[in-house]
Amino acid sequence: MSASQIGEELVALCKQGKNMDAIEKFYSPNIVSIEACAMPGMEQTQTGIDAIKGKNTWWVENHEVHDGEVSGPFPHGNRFAVLFKFEVTPKHTGKRMTIEEIGLYTVEEDKIVKEEFFYAAQ
Amino acid sequence: MSASQIGEELVALCKQGKNMDAIEKFYSPNIVSIEACAMPGMEQTQTGIDAIKGKNTWWVENHEVHDGEVSGPFPHGNRFAVLFKFEVTPKHTGKRMTIEEIGLYTVEEDKIVKEEFFYAAQ
Repeated sequence: MSASQIGEELVALCKQGKNMDAIEKFYSPNIVSIEACAMPGMEQTQTGIDAIKGKNTWWVENHEVHDGEVSGPFPHGNRFAVLFKFEVTPKHTGKRMTIEEIGLYTVEEDKIVKEEFFYAAQ
Repeated sequence: MSASQIGEELVALCKQGKNMDAIEKFYSPNIVSIEACAMPGMEQTQTGIDAIKGKNTWWVENHEVHDGEVSGPFPHGNRFAVLFKFEVTPKHTGKRMTIEEIGLYTVEEDKIVKEEFFYAAQ
């Protein structure tokens, strides 16, 4: 599968809120995930599919999502970008906010081997 | 200057339509510019500030821009991403279209040394 095809499927799954299914289906066991900055109590870079599943579970459990929008993919060679917009309330602040971020995904041998997130610090 | 600061200024200039000023101010003489796919009659990868100025001039001269929106920057380490949306009519087709693309910029020593564009082929 091309990066573009994987991007199409990943975006379709994320639009349905099935992010964990996308991870199961397309992520390499050795996935490297790099945030723009470290999230509370986590390293900025995490490696391995179990760590990434853990990060996603933490995020879902700690944010109330009011609205979400997923756009893309925007392909370029063996990479593609995805635009995410969320209206969320982090449970530890209780303050509703808009998150807009870009995910950049690198594909090797039909698997996503790296995800990098771009956003402005709040 | 950090990538984030350069990103802020680049976005501000692009919002004013001053893309060429942003190139003059922030691009390295050895800038490498990589499109998602080659534009008509051009290589996918172009190198050097004169080539990039030429590409921008060609684009402006060959597209009627009806509306544009520039969002960002979305920083990540020494890189930042910018989201562009344009309503344009390419002069060679005469067909109005929406272009949505992400620019990914890499900064070294206060200069943008690489720009990569992500978009779906039309």
